[in-house]
Amino acid sequence: MDEDQELLETMKLRILRSFMWREDVVIPLAEKLEITTEDLEQILMNHLDMSSLEAIYPRFESARTKYFSEKLHSDLRLCLLCDVLEIIPEEEANKIKENLVKEISKGKDYETTLKNGKKQVLNFLK
Amino acid sequence: MDEDQELLETMKLRILRSFMWREDVVIPLAEKLEITTEDLEQILMNHLDMSSLEAIYPRFESARTKYFSEKLHSDLRLCLLCDVLEIIPEEEANKIKENLVKEISKGKDYETTLKNGKKQVLNFLK
Repeated sequence: MDEDQELLETMKLRILRSFMWREDVVIPLAEKLEITTEDLEQILMNHLDMSSLEAIYPRFESARTKYFSEKLHSDLRLCLLCDVLEIIPEEEANKIKENLVKEISKGKDYETTLKNGKKQVLNFLK
Repeated sequence: MDEDQELLETMKLRILRSFMWREDVVIPLAEKLEITTEDLEQILMNHLDMSSLEAIYPRFESARTKYFSEKLHSDLRLCLLCDVLEIIPEEEANKIKENLVKEISKGKDYETTLKNGKKQVLNFLK
């Protein structure tokens, strides 16, 4: 590796090892893909140039919202309840998900929020 | 409950307790919502009339496909890898998900398929 290349890697690593990148991306993603954070850093460094690395972070917050909304949709079986059985209107499902995602954004943990979501679904159905 | 009502409930229950409804809907959905199968049967009977109950079953298979595809999208963090980091093209992500869903349809269990999916994601990234 020549000197420029080495400097570039150091700069990229500095970004990837900043608190927010590590907490919000590197650690959870490595865990989910079952690889070490070092391996993931290497993958990200290979695929992303400096300007991408700097530009991407602000997009995580909206991605988090979308991710939790999709996860709740799946874990609350809204696909089945709304689309197939049609016993929960899409509007109601969206309202439930939006409120739950807001709770998560305020810091409530996912499992508690999911439990709460199940109660809301059942209240609506009963 | 008058006699007609009682007969209707018996007919609805017969459908809900048929092998496919129980295996594919009632048992997994009750488990996920953390209620008894009897409570879920009651909810479904209240919300669905006979013609809906008879018409719905054929839609489950396509719903299952959609459900597993969404679940894989979430569990493989494709939301992050495709939409935010943009290091996996959407086309590649769809190809991976379609192949995995096919494996599930052929009877492979979800956890094994997910592990396989992680390998495919990592192979693509490396």
